[in-house]
Amino acid sequence: MLTTTNPTTGETTDSGIAVTADVAAVVDRAQHAFTALAAEPRTWRADLLDALASALEEHRDDLVALANSETGLGVARLTGEVGRSAFQFRLFAEALREGSYLEAAIDHAGETALGPQPEIRRMLVPIGPVAVFGSSNFPFAFSVAGGDTASALAAGNPVVIKAHGSHPLTSRASFDALSAAAAAHGAPEGTISIVYGTQSGRDLVADPRIKAVGFTGSLSAAQSLMSIIDERDTPIPFYGELSSLNPLVVTEAAAEERADELAAGLFGSFTLGAGQFCTKPGIAFVPTGEAGDAVLDGLVTRSRDAQAQVLLNNRIASSFDEIRSRLITQGRATVAVEGVAHGFTATPSVLVIDAAHLTASATEEAFGPLVLVVRYSGLDEVYSALACVPDSLTATILHAPADDITALTRELAPRAGRLVFNGYPTGVRVSWGQQHGGPWPATNSLHTSVGVTAIRRFLRPLAWQNAPEAVLPPELREGATGIPRRVDGVLTLPA
Amino acid sequence: MLTTTNPTTGETTDSGIAVTADVAAVVDRAQHAFTALAAEPRTWRADLLDALASALEEHRDDLVALANSETGLGVARLTGEVGRSAFQFRLFAEALREGSYLEAAIDHAGETALGPQPEIRRMLVPIGPVAVFGSSNFPFAFSVAGGDTASALAAGNPVVIKAHGSHPLTSRASFDALSAAAAAHGAPEGTISIVYGTQSGRDLVADPRIKAVGFTGSLSAAQSLMSIIDERDTPIPFYGELSSLNPLVVTEAAAEERADELAAGLFGSFTLGAGQFCTKPGIAFVPTGEAGDAVLDGLVTRSRDAQAQVLLNNRIASSFDEIRSRLITQGRATVAVEGVAHGFTATPSVLVIDAAHLTASATEEAFGPLVLVVRYSGLDEVYSALACVPDSLTATILHAPADDITALTRELAPRAGRLVFNGYPTGVRVSWGQQHGGPWPATNSLHTSVGVTAIRRFLRPLAWQNAPEAVLPPELREGATGIPRRVDGVLTLPA
Repeated sequence: MLTTTNPTTGETTDSGIAVTADVAAVVDRAQHAFTALAAEPRTWRADLLDALASALEEHRDDLVALANSETGLGVARLTGEVGRSAFQFRLFAEALREGSYLEAAIDHAGETALGPQPEIRRMLVPIGPVAVFGSSNFPFAFSVAGGDTASALAAGNPVVIKAHGSHPLTSRASFDALSAAAAAHGAPEGTISIVYGTQSGRDLVADPRIKAVGFTGSLSAAQSLMSIIDERDTPIPFYGELSSLNPLVVTEAAAEERADELAAGLFGSFTLGAGQFCTKPGIAFVPTGEAGDAVLDGLVTRSRDAQAQVLLNNRIASSFDEIRSRLITQGRATVAVEGVAHGFTATPSVLVIDAAHLTASATEEAFGPLVLVVRYSGLDEVYSALACVPDSLTATILHAPADDITALTRELAPRAGRLVFNGYPTGVRVSWGQQHGGPWPATNSLHTSVGVTAIRRFLRPLAWQNAPEAVLPPELREGATGIPRRVDGVLTLPA
Repeated sequence: MLTTTNPTTGETTDSGIAVTADVAAVVDRAQHAFTALAAEPRTWRADLLDALASALEEHRDDLVALANSETGLGVARLTGEVGRSAFQFRLFAEALREGSYLEAAIDHAGETALGPQPEIRRMLVPIGPVAVFGSSNFPFAFSVAGGDTASALAAGNPVVIKAHGSHPLTSRASFDALSAAAAAHGAPEGTISIVYGTQSGRDLVADPRIKAVGFTGSLSAAQSLMSIIDERDTPIPFYGELSSLNPLVVTEAAAEERADELAAGLFGSFTLGAGQFCTKPGIAFVPTGEAGDAVLDGLVTRSRDAQAQVLLNNRIASSFDEIRSRLITQGRATVAVEGVAHGFTATPSVLVIDAAHLTASATEEAFGPLVLVVRYSGLDEVYSALACVPDSLTATILHAPADDITALTRELAPRAGRLVFNGYPTGVRVSWGQQHGGPWPATNSLHTSVGVTAIRRFLRPLAWQNAPEAVLPPELREGATGIPRRVDGVLTLPA
């Protein structure tokens, strides 16, 4: 049986949930569901996603209470996160109805510069059962009811979720709510499944019927799963959202203009959710001199006065402590605010280093409420120091109106998936244009895990050459279909 | 020095081309070019691609003569292939001018169901230097001047091409033509580069500055490169177009209706280019009984009467012979037409087996003029036998008007990237909607290597949150930009 720990009290109890013994049987049902799902139109799936959203909302209070007991993230944050998860399901429903995610294209037969050519019709189709690994830090939005589940289902694929060991009860309750709603909607058995235990996750990734993996978690866990993929007869994509330091640069003029406001904003961002955000600004470039000193002072004062926050689990708490020590001993950072870690709790830590002394040993990600302030004299020092900063999900510039930030933007753009200006990277809007992904080790894909285009990860193109109308999907038949299509190279909107 | 062999005469000579010693220096120039290319608008790149197309056409006769001496593919076919390559460059130029490949999206700031949200603008940006491995069987369209080069350049990436050892002189001449045109257009040094020799290809894939690999070739060569990627600190996508058996099914009614026409079509397709097409129908399901016998007879007669064809190189010729023997001894196929392989030449082979006896040993891909005819009684035998057929680039159905091919289409769809009806899979139209890719081992990606959407492989999304207009790319600024964009979820076309 899996245990569950309340990080606020430190109490560990039996969850009553058994490790999944027969993962193959679960994937077997998912494979059958894949065939059955193909018979349903995409509007049926849109309605399914809406039903899943409503189910989450109906069970919100119970889900939040359970999650709070397993994560200590607090009722307000967790209530918002359930809302965010429901919103995600509904946004994908909207995208399904709109239909341009299919990338439908028709090239009619005819004479071309290369002679007569056959008719080609193309659109994206689902790939098959998808394995989704829930994260510890977002028990809803990046877990059982999260974006990977929503986008894989939206694409038309069954989903098998590996529950995160840090919140088994929340995982099961989320799954129960979703699967009851799916059954009530008439979804085939196996459309959504769940497995428990570390070995079940490994079995899942190794199963030849699994066609892609969505993962949010640590770099080391990801690498272990990727090595299983390397051993498969058939390689599959691994969409991992992993480690991220999220560099942030305060310009000289911004510090002069609004030092305390910046200190307040940065403090709020690096301590949000006890610093357990993949988008936490873990490294902040602050100019030397008085204005920069004022930013640092504001950060230090707020951090010293802060109350202890509960970390998600024992592994994160002990790892946070270890990495903080390494940043000081090996990374040569000096301590501005030491912070206190005790049991599952921590108070914020502020470390400081000169840009000229920054090394890779100082840029290890500390998952928790810690920021490394790097003092710089002139942006050239920032550009040089960035060589020691691993690529990230985000990069942030806090600037003043008169600043020319063209060169700084150009330096940061290749290192991140989202550039933030005069704002903070924590908080990822769920929308059509969002990009939550970045160069390795932030993620290892050319895709996003948040926002509508996340659906593209779980689709593959299929072309029909000279097909009789009867075997074409409705979206590719000759008449109007109500979706955007590219016809003979010209993008056309529905009338 | 690399050698070059004329497969028609068997003569091997010194090419005068040295193995590339310093791959790192080549990639270094590519990395510098990447930065410089970022300063150019996409219309500049469109003009560059047009210039590359014209350069190929200008040098067509010389290129064809060289390629014919190194491949034996014949002047007519090679002339067409140069035209195809030029067409590809121009099609990507057209796609750049049209601009929807950028997937530009703008979500304005404002109140949402989840509270106030920041502005997000997103589009696709180039990933960095791309390694392209030329194939042996298409010395232009899938080699130095091929689709991977065109799509990677179109996306805004420098390209480093690994020349195929089977046609070094054609590779160098193609490269010289392209790079002179690029220089004349003002492209930075390192925009297009070439390296020679097997080790240089391995060095290229291992280089940390290379951000993706485009490859067309054998499964074994691909696996060797993929294991280099597994060893990299930073994983990169490997877009391989590998092995493909391309199953083809003749229905009972089609055989009854037009047996000899089908035999003629299938014969033409499996012997096209001496059977050295990745889309060659290598396995053909033909019904038992008189009508099916007539198809087989027509195939046998034509194959017996056929003249010997020149294979590309010694390795392909000897491997073809070995695999043909294995299909008989281990696969238990019977010989209808034995074919004669001699030196670099081969005449067509037709092997036959009952569907009930088909095993994986009989479905090894024989690269060359060979087809395995599988006799079946009823489509259920086809469905069962398909379990022994590896997934492919294409699947083909030759049917009669009255046939209900819904179930057959449904069985074939998950096994291929392109479904062909009453046509033949050889011949891949270059167009907006084309899909040239399929489940592993056909390719290992969710993308195409032919057609406009091939560009997506070499792009990554980047989002700008609350960015000042000055740092935004022109395509994402607030005013009209002449390209399709998704604004607040609504796809909008330029006025």
